[in-house]
Amino acid sequence: MVDIVFAGTIGLDDIETPFGKVKEALGGSSIFSAYAASFFARPGVVSIAGEDLPESHTKTMESKGISLEGVERKGKNFRWEGLYEFDMNEAKTLRTELNSLVEFDPKLPESYKKAKYLFLANVDPDIQLKVVEQMESPEFIVMDTMNFWIEHKRDELIDVMKKVDVIVLNDGEARQLFETVNLITAANKALEYARKAVIIKKGEHGALLFVKEDGNIRHFNAPGYPLETVKDPTGCGDSFGGGFIGWIAKTKDHSDANLRKAVIYGSVLASYNAEDFSLERQKTLTKDDIEARFNEMREIREF
Amino acid sequence: MVDIVFAGTIGLDDIETPFGKVKEALGGSSIFSAYAASFFARPGVVSIAGEDLPESHTKTMESKGISLEGVERKGKNFRWEGLYEFDMNEAKTLRTELNSLVEFDPKLPESYKKAKYLFLANVDPDIQLKVVEQMESPEFIVMDTMNFWIEHKRDELIDVMKKVDVIVLNDGEARQLFETVNLITAANKALEYARKAVIIKKGEHGALLFVKEDGNIRHFNAPGYPLETVKDPTGCGDSFGGGFIGWIAKTKDHSDANLRKAVIYGSVLASYNAEDFSLERQKTLTKDDIEARFNEMREIREF
Repeated sequence: MVDIVFAGTIGLDDIETPFGKVKEALGGSSIFSAYAASFFARPGVVSIAGEDLPESHTKTMESKGISLEGVERKGKNFRWEGLYEFDMNEAKTLRTELNSLVEFDPKLPESYKKAKYLFLANVDPDIQLKVVEQMESPEFIVMDTMNFWIEHKRDELIDVMKKVDVIVLNDGEARQLFETVNLITAANKALEYARKAVIIKKGEHGALLFVKEDGNIRHFNAPGYPLETVKDPTGCGDSFGGGFIGWIAKTKDHSDANLRKAVIYGSVLASYNAEDFSLERQKTLTKDDIEARFNEMREIREF
Repeated sequence: MVDIVFAGTIGLDDIETPFGKVKEALGGSSIFSAYAASFFARPGVVSIAGEDLPESHTKTMESKGISLEGVERKGKNFRWEGLYEFDMNEAKTLRTELNSLVEFDPKLPESYKKAKYLFLANVDPDIQLKVVEQMESPEFIVMDTMNFWIEHKRDELIDVMKKVDVIVLNDGEARQLFETVNLITAANKALEYARKAVIIKKGEHGALLFVKEDGNIRHFNAPGYPLETVKDPTGCGDSFGGGFIGWIAKTKDHSDANLRKAVIYGSVLASYNAEDFSLERQKTLTKDDIEARFNEMREIREF
């Protein structure tokens, strides 16, 4: 039985940062998000991977109880090559090979369809829609996206937004999609679509949560965890989303108060992700580590 | 008797933003900071102004109990013309006329010298030093600065930093001065100079406070107040600093816990300042307004 379905990409990443480089590292939006959620609940991934995806990578996922039953294998794997320079905020894409990703036509295994939680990680909105339609009775759907889809499939993206409980965007995407520099204005516009909430991720500056409750919009400002060393930020946004929905699925509490906690858990998972390449830091992460940083997040905002 | 001395500029500002424009509005670093502090304690300004500074502007200050005894009058007033475009984060300077500011040689009135609190607002670090030297027994000194002095008087700036309890910088200045993109690293370097704490202002993203206490560095992350309408951000940084030292001078409590509260009061004053041009919003501001927003800052942080 799967608690949360994660739809998104599986990637083989070549990444270089000022702190080192990796080749054919495990990456992709469904991978980072499902791995983060695995600390709280049982994730199942629906995606497509190449025949060339190393077995060590599938083992990394399965050892955390993540179901890969929904992963089709075909041809050559989606590959991405990125470079982070001194300012680690944005990756420069050196090469993208979509490969088998262009043939991704999601088919949910029976064991996934009854899950109550669904995370639509960053992927083509047409695929996100197909996944939503195959779920039998999802109770809580979270979607993530990226600037590429805002530019190329805006209408389809809006269609997905109308079907979800929570929209997750980063600040640049929110400004671009809603054509405003003001993030509060952007959030109010996003809440015309999402049933419950919108989250605007701001990288090192933390995240903003806006929740519709009792006819009001309630605002929560989550701090960024103060990391002195960021080794590789790839997958931080996905880790945030996975930690967020993981906590919600574990507690089954969709209140504003619990969504706030979920944002903090998402931030904690994202901060650990940045400390090393690919999933290296998460592989040795314990529930105690997560709780310790959750408590630190309380202390740094206490007044 | 003056509780806090404010050393800095007095300006006549011509400002245009997407929301309107003003001519010869009251501005300058000592003005915004002293006005913000006047809600908590009795400020005295040491500065230089022109003979052409309108009486209505001096009345604006005096009506809040702000002493202008330390303000010399000479020649033509310092003038600044700035434009904010759609992205309100940074002003484009259209014109700067230093005028009598170049002759500013601060002389503290006797009634200022015994004050226990000193705020060195943004001004030439040589002037900041001269003011520090004239104080008899200051107990708590806060300094602000700007990129111009980092570029042109770095050594003098560092000299001032070694004489103060709290350094206030914005994020761009902190990165520039300490040659790092990482704000945590920058803060640690600043704490090698300042006796007590460093604050990094991040505009809409709030502020970071780092305090040396009991041999440790304690970190506080203050949220940005969620403003949907920013009419004119001129003076926000100064208002932050004034609200910060105002609260400290009122409570005479220099602990980490109270510095955190002071950062929130600073943020509250800065957020009100942004709602209208010059000091227009502050003129009608009440202590209840300040308390209400202080409490809102707690609510947006609760989890």
